Amino acid sequence: MTTETASKTVDAAIIGAGSGGLTVAIGLSQFGKSVALIEAAEIGGDCTNVGCIPSKSLLHHTAHQDGRSPAEIMTKVRERRNNLRDHETEEFSDKDGIDMMWGRAKIDAADRLTVTHKDGSTTVVTAKNIIVATGSRARRIPIEGLDDDRYLTNEELFEEENVPSKLVIVGAGPIGIEMATAFQRLGTEVVVLDAAPRVLPLYLPEASAIVERGLTARGIDVRPGIVAKRFDSATQTLHVGPLDGDVTGQIADVDKVLVAVGRVPNSDNLGLEELGVEMERGRIVINGKGQSSVDGIWAAGDVSTEGATTHAANAWGRRIIKAILAPPAPAGPKPLHPAVTFSDPEAATIGEQPEEVPGDVRRIVVDYAKADRSYTDEVGEGVIIVDVRKFTGAVLGATIVGPRAGELISVFSLAMKNDIRFSKWYGTVWPYPSYADAIGKAVDAYMGEALPNMHKEFASWAKGKIGRLF
Amino acid sequence: MTTETASKTVDAAIIGAGSGGLTVAIGLSQFGKSVALIEAAEIGGDCTNVGCIPSKSLLHHTAHQDGRSPAEIMTKVRERRNNLRDHETEEFSDKDGIDMMWGRAKIDAADRLTVTHKDGSTTVVTAKNIIVATGSRARRIPIEGLDDDRYLTNEELFEEENVPSKLVIVGAGPIGIEMATAFQRLGTEVVVLDAAPRVLPLYLPEASAIVERGLTARGIDVRPGIVAKRFDSATQTLHVGPLDGDVTGQIADVDKVLVAVGRVPNSDNLGLEELGVEMERGRIVINGKGQSSVDGIWAAGDVSTEGATTHAANAWGRRIIKAILAPPAPAGPKPLHPAVTFSDPEAATIGEQPEEVPGDVRRIVVDYAKADRSYTDEVGEGVIIVDVRKFTGAVLGATIVGPRAGELISVFSLAMKNDIRFSKWYGTVWPYPSYADAIGKAVDAYMGEALPNMHKEFASWAKGKIGRLF
Repeated sequence: MTTETASKTVDAAIIGAGSGGLTVAIGLSQFGKSVALIEAAEIGGDCTNVGCIPSKSLLHHTAHQDGRSPAEIMTKVRERRNNLRDHETEEFSDKDGIDMMWGRAKIDAADRLTVTHKDGSTTVVTAKNIIVATGSRARRIPIEGLDDDRYLTNEELFEEENVPSKLVIVGAGPIGIEMATAFQRLGTEVVVLDAAPRVLPLYLPEASAIVERGLTARGIDVRPGIVAKRFDSATQTLHVGPLDGDVTGQIADVDKVLVAVGRVPNSDNLGLEELGVEMERGRIVINGKGQSSVDGIWAAGDVSTEGATTHAANAWGRRIIKAILAPPAPAGPKPLHPAVTFSDPEAATIGEQPEEVPGDVRRIVVDYAKADRSYTDEVGEGVIIVDVRKFTGAVLGATIVGPRAGELISVFSLAMKNDIRFSKWYGTVWPYPSYADAIGKAVDAYMGEALPNMHKEFASWAKGKIGRLF
Repeated sequence: MTTETASKTVDAAIIGAGSGGLTVAIGLSQFGKSVALIEAAEIGGDCTNVGCIPSKSLLHHTAHQDGRSPAEIMTKVRERRNNLRDHETEEFSDKDGIDMMWGRAKIDAADRLTVTHKDGSTTVVTAKNIIVATGSRARRIPIEGLDDDRYLTNEELFEEENVPSKLVIVGAGPIGIEMATAFQRLGTEVVVLDAAPRVLPLYLPEASAIVERGLTARGIDVRPGIVAKRFDSATQTLHVGPLDGDVTGQIADVDKVLVAVGRVPNSDNLGLEELGVEMERGRIVINGKGQSSVDGIWAAGDVSTEGATTHAANAWGRRIIKAILAPPAPAGPKPLHPAVTFSDPEAATIGEQPEEVPGDVRRIVVDYAKADRSYTDEVGEGVIIVDVRKFTGAVLGATIVGPRAGELISVFSLAMKNDIRFSKWYGTVWPYPSYADAIGKAVDAYMGEALPNMHKEFASWAKGKIGRLF
């Protein structure tokens, strides 16, 4: 242990080298700003190490197994992940304008922080801007009687050498549903529990129902409204029941339990409270520019109140770059963040879609399976649900469940960002036979519903009433 | 044989029940117009019977063989096709407002045609509007020495009970390339020839090169610049060579030859010449509303000069509906037709992209494989090429090669239709990790190139020079 202390002055000190931190570091350094990038664990954050990258890699390799054993696939997934991490680590350890620092940061003042390195030495960094991008970690809930070696979160899951014979997944959000999909393909017996009455509770009920039927059809045992109560190690039995009730059932021969019940922001031990940074349920409150309540301190990604995905962290990182480089620039409206669950079928959503349709909103629901591509590809079920403001035709939100949903949602993202009202989508030629054709069917349905007396209005076209629609 | 003659008067007589004809028939009948729909062969046209539907079904089932034999897969593809055709036939034989007539039509005057039914009887149909939607057929070129039973086009291909052991495909356009992909998966030895110097000659050379490498990597023998010269039946040898040269090579043990060298419009024997309808290389010249040079005669789809795909026929069918129902309505700009080749990797394109980049155009080229999703899914190669008009930022055309290209092209279709300049795409949040992220990289590249002195311009932001870009 050394107690050596160095000091350094930079334009921006960034805490956390995940999606948000890397975005800001690259952006600011490209524009000539000096940057200190501080990381306590691994480059890439949760996404590269225990999130998107290994999970999507696992989904890919489980969908294309080519005769490999489950253990070989797990090894392959780790290899791919490690290669990417090593590449990123090498890249950032020697990048012009970025001073990569390994250690834990504590913010001492709005323009100063101390990095404690692994060898005990410290570096005091003075920076006009401090960007907190420390992300989040898996929320761990106690399950009585469950040993640590059977308790997994996404942080341990990908280190498993052999896949569990029977896996109970606690939490039917995106992580739980994606991993249920992947492990079932590997031959694992999978049970999914959730306190909520349906899977993917942040999606519309119609979307949840289709995803749930897809899981069930593949042999996954989905139990909504049920939580883990206690584990009996002697018999490897998990006792389960409704959140507010007694044990109502047992799951025998449980090998592992994957807990995926949400995230906890990494906002502790950073000195934020001492500085009076405004927080909300552990997250740093930021304005449209990514600024916290304390001048000079910014936040992006999971540790902030805006967005909790890799792409949200990236989007807010970009806002911070802009705000630091061009302070007078207005922030503009908040970015719309799509959400995608890479299950089978995929589910994707963007914008606001309340379960109850407000009176001034027209909800268009189209059966994805009616697109001819769904016929050729033998797709059983799917849906597109589009909410359109009456009178203005503004698209407020969309949900897609079916193949390629995670790609097609970007048609909505771009159009909503640019406020292309739904009638203006009419006349777009969707390739035949693509899944995008289902979007065309939604537009047709909208035109038919929005113009219920279309033939009369057609006849009155000469008066110029509806010409703009075509 | 009967010589009975009936007569009938309708608002619109539509010749051909493929994509274009069905679109017009459904649309007009929904708006209360009386419609005669005349078909000489099968409902659904080429698309349902010998095109999109069986080809995409074959691509799907060859990608997911699940241990089935090639013959079983061919049977399955026919079953699916027949089910759809039977369904469509039933639907249209008993549809309100549509009088389905089986037979061949000959146009006698701009408002009258005669249908000759299979039993020899005729029906004279008087109609204010006659819509020609007769489509096209495979172009057949002679190959010396090749017997009919070895000579296939898309019209015979899907009837094959057993897949060929060795298939030579003459023509490396979309049909040839898709079928090369499918039959290679079924274990057929595939050779692809084309007179052109590259596959998919209507795409940009970069796109062709990637698709060609994909085919070659799968073991398909691709020979650009080479045509079939003559076939020796005794030895089952195809002699090949450059278009303007001698035989330079032999392909032995050829089982079948698939000729996919373009389409011939079905414009003959319809009485079009007699009426003085303007034609161009056998196709009916139409204006922006879908009208031919003779008042009252319209055309949509392959038989017209606009578009030669199912979605183009549909788009032009819609224009005809609008023009008939609301004659004074302006036609509006011609629809942009995307083109998709469902090969592996997929290729898609929209708009105008000349090989030589004009001086006032900025061409953005982004490696699709650099999207992180390409990393998790182990995608070797792909590209996005976007052409943007300098100064205005208007998107003129785009080409995508890679997984999901056929879906992602619709982001461009919708944006180009609504004239969203490329800088306005900036700030769209693309889901991570999706392939759409590669579009985001193209936007970033554009912003970086379009603003080469971005950091200086950033600094001058307060002067309001570039604020609109963010």
